[in-house]
Amino acid sequence: MNDATGASGSDAVLDALVFAHEGLLPAIVQDDESGEVLMLAWMDREAVRRTLTTGRVTFWSRSRQEYWRKGDTSGHRQYVRGVAMDCDGDTLLVRVVQIGAACHTGTRTCFTGRELPAAVGDPEQDA
Amino acid sequence: MNDATGASGSDAVLDALVFAHEGLLPAIVQDDESGEVLMLAWMDREAVRRTLTTGRVTFWSRSRQEYWRKGDTSGHRQYVRGVAMDCDGDTLLVRVVQIGAACHTGTRTCFTGRELPAAVGDPEQDA
Repeated sequence: MNDATGASGSDAVLDALVFAHEGLLPAIVQDDESGEVLMLAWMDREAVRRTLTTGRVTFWSRSRQEYWRKGDTSGHRQYVRGVAMDCDGDTLLVRVVQIGAACHTGTRTCFTGRELPAAVGDPEQDA
Repeated sequence: MNDATGASGSDAVLDALVFAHEGLLPAIVQDDESGEVLMLAWMDREAVRRTLTTGRVTFWSRSRQEYWRKGDTSGHRQYVRGVAMDCDGDTLLVRVVQIGAACHTGTRTCFTGRELPAAVGDPEQDA
């Protein structure tokens, strides 16, 4: 694991991250109070730097090819409560205070009401 | 949004998904009881089908280029409790019962103890 100590948004912190997908990494956004997973979006190095230093979550929009500070259009801002990287440094978990709906469709999370039919596994029944 | 009704692992369900990253999509794994985000890994269409139909979470390992049924080596199995897609159909949220540590490093989640220094945002201080 890389050493990611340092000031927020410093080169030492950003250098610990791996942007393995065309210069981007996936950022999971979680409601810090409820624990709900709200959405997943993508960040490049500069979007991570802005997220770590400004208190507002910023993504890179792959479709629009521009920075996207969540809530600037919709009002549905995300305020940073904490950011962690994973063991490979190639994924971020961003805990936030979410104002309004996280999803552009108006649902609370991007996963709300989008369950897939799945067989449920049972540890008790598995050798 | 796509119609993803149908039997678990059916073509209708799988056709609703978008595998936008070299045939893969990111799957967020969340502890169904605690709400903890455990890890993120990648699935191709077949890994999703196996996850939806077998009750055990299966990924595609990009580094090893093979299917990876979580826990087969480590014993740290993930039993499916529910699977949802996001509004774009290009990300999955898989809720599980996690046996043991989710992370190969032995920590409970892949994000445990890997906090980055971040400025905290405050809705009250923001116009």
